[in-house]
Amino acid sequence: MSTEPQLTRASVEAAHSLIKPYIHETPVLTSKTVDLIASTPQLPSELLGTKWESQPPAKPILRLHFKCENFQKIGAFKARGAFHAIERLKQQSNWEEIKSKGVITHSSGNHASALALASSTSLLPSYIIMPTISSPLKISATQSHHPSLISIHFSGPTSSEREALTSKIQSLTSSTLIPPYDHPDIIAGQGTASLELLSQTTPPSSQSSILNAIITPLGGGGLLSGTALTCSTTPTKVYGSEPSFQGANDAFQAFYSPTGDRITTVKSLTIADGLRTPVGKLNWEIIYHRKLVDGIYSVTENQIKSALKLVLERMKIVVEPSAVVPLAVALYNEDFRKMVEGESGEKGWDLGIIFSGGNISVEGLAKLFGEDEKKETKE
Amino acid sequence: MSTEPQLTRASVEAAHSLIKPYIHETPVLTSKTVDLIASTPQLPSELLGTKWESQPPAKPILRLHFKCENFQKIGAFKARGAFHAIERLKQQSNWEEIKSKGVITHSSGNHASALALASSTSLLPSYIIMPTISSPLKISATQSHHPSLISIHFSGPTSSEREALTSKIQSLTSSTLIPPYDHPDIIAGQGTASLELLSQTTPPSSQSSILNAIITPLGGGGLLSGTALTCSTTPTKVYGSEPSFQGANDAFQAFYSPTGDRITTVKSLTIADGLRTPVGKLNWEIIYHRKLVDGIYSVTENQIKSALKLVLERMKIVVEPSAVVPLAVALYNEDFRKMVEGESGEKGWDLGIIFSGGNISVEGLAKLFGEDEKKETKE
Repeated sequence: MSTEPQLTRASVEAAHSLIKPYIHETPVLTSKTVDLIASTPQLPSELLGTKWESQPPAKPILRLHFKCENFQKIGAFKARGAFHAIERLKQQSNWEEIKSKGVITHSSGNHASALALASSTSLLPSYIIMPTISSPLKISATQSHHPSLISIHFSGPTSSEREALTSKIQSLTSSTLIPPYDHPDIIAGQGTASLELLSQTTPPSSQSSILNAIITPLGGGGLLSGTALTCSTTPTKVYGSEPSFQGANDAFQAFYSPTGDRITTVKSLTIADGLRTPVGKLNWEIIYHRKLVDGIYSVTENQIKSALKLVLERMKIVVEPSAVVPLAVALYNEDFRKMVEGESGEKGWDLGIIFSGGNISVEGLAKLFGEDEKKETKE
Repeated sequence: MSTEPQLTRASVEAAHSLIKPYIHETPVLTSKTVDLIASTPQLPSELLGTKWESQPPAKPILRLHFKCENFQKIGAFKARGAFHAIERLKQQSNWEEIKSKGVITHSSGNHASALALASSTSLLPSYIIMPTISSPLKISATQSHHPSLISIHFSGPTSSEREALTSKIQSLTSSTLIPPYDHPDIIAGQGTASLELLSQTTPPSSQSSILNAIITPLGGGGLLSGTALTCSTTPTKVYGSEPSFQGANDAFQAFYSPTGDRITTVKSLTIADGLRTPVGKLNWEIIYHRKLVDGIYSVTENQIKSALKLVLERMKIVVEPSAVVPLAVALYNEDFRKMVEGESGEKGWDLGIIFSGGNISVEGLAKLFGEDEKKETKE
């Protein structure tokens, strides 16, 4: 990686022109109801038992702009990085050989489905290593694209089990590894969601977006580091958001630690299943060492569920739990809300939120919101 | 009613110009995935146990255009009729008196919420009679608009209990009754959804919509009779769709009976809770006696659930069970599918589908798709 030129906003712009024919420019939605809730201080009773108990609730004014990657191909932003990775392979001198050997990846779901679609679109074989605990919807979505070109292999649930099986199949097939997030082409591809978002929130008469900040979900860090590159030449600030459950907030912990050392192992079964992975090496380089991200915040499982309920019932769109983690931060994390209040005062903030994906089955929703779950998740 | 001029397409156009400032022009969505499924013959195994068993499956080609009234104000098309009814009251000579006495209605939910919004927007008091079994989401949506102007009263679940309480409160308050569907202003208002749909599916260079037909949910018949008026001067055909569970397909039965007599009582607990009512008198006049509707089809509870699952998981939007009844007809009712095949042949049909609303809670979804429901609904 050290011989690669450093990734910049121009890398994201170049990625966008390569993948435009293959992806949707997803809509940006707003909701007066959700803005009103986000701009209403939490009740003191809602802060009981949290570290903000007995502090005066923050009073931020928030106008939210939702970039709806749940409507993206394969139902998630991951299509962007995957198509970009394949388009970049086409620029290599040994493309025909690469094409015949195919590509390989390990993923808990959306990246797998995205790579299966992107590679089969260009008629490459692909080898997809998925953990056996992947959601049935994600497995069937992956299998559906072009069955004769796509081989799916199941590994144990941990990342080391997945990586071992990936190495084995890669050496048997000489296929090219396209990892889910820790890769320059993936990062530049994922950054294109924010590139569109900034453009879609730029008034006709203006040169720049109205967004004061963008907040994204943060798992491996592909989306956040790409967004950070996109915004690196603009005044728009960038934040990441994680579930706190069982240490899934690895990047939050590292970001505010004295040394800033990346945490490389996470074992969390957070309901935000796309965010169970530790942040990647190159992603952390961009997020932390290059100082292109302004802060990281985390939220509880119940806060994620509340935000999900709000989006489904009020905005009437289907998003997956990982996708609402940034909204949960905007609604419930008092550190974030106080920061917004302090930065923006009475003018308030226009905040971009990336709804990263919408791949959840109705049975998955039933598990989250059925009678059995009325006993609150212990954290 | 007999002194009123007969309702026509012009009534719907006039309604649209009155309510435009108050309602959303909702989007029309398409889905290649759903078109592919709709245009694939059902498997012989899927027809086992139905009256189409061992017949060759129909092979219609369908391109579906979904009018998304789930994104309408209050989450359903009912906002259209309610705003129209209030605007029409403003045209009456004793408007100031009407305004001071307020309006009253009985409704299982969406009409109640719509009338509460429309009346409070013009500062009229409203009296809303809801059955105690209404969904909590619909009750809270109704209460939220303007609490000081809105009084909610709960009645028993049957329509006669509701009507008795409505009469009692109406005589105490001298308020004006705005019924949920059997009323000319409501019908003309509901017809505006299809007016927009036809316009939104008219190519820039053309004078007329590409839609060969529109199919709507059918409960009391406000939406279907309004749609029939809208299409009465166009070549676009009009169909209604009902749940068959526990006789909720009252209009289907009457439509194909020798006498065409309207059925006036329905007691069904179909999951399509907006469609539990018998068709209204004026509605039936338009649907049946004026011959402005081309056919009525019905579907089972499981077919409604399958269609709902498809919309949530593939289109990533939230709709309520009543809203997907027409889609269930297009996907699963072989009589409808054979009719389409016969009418359209290899050219196929562009079919408009009104997604009538999106008011379902996450707990309601969990009930429909949770473990407990795996035992199939008996019909």
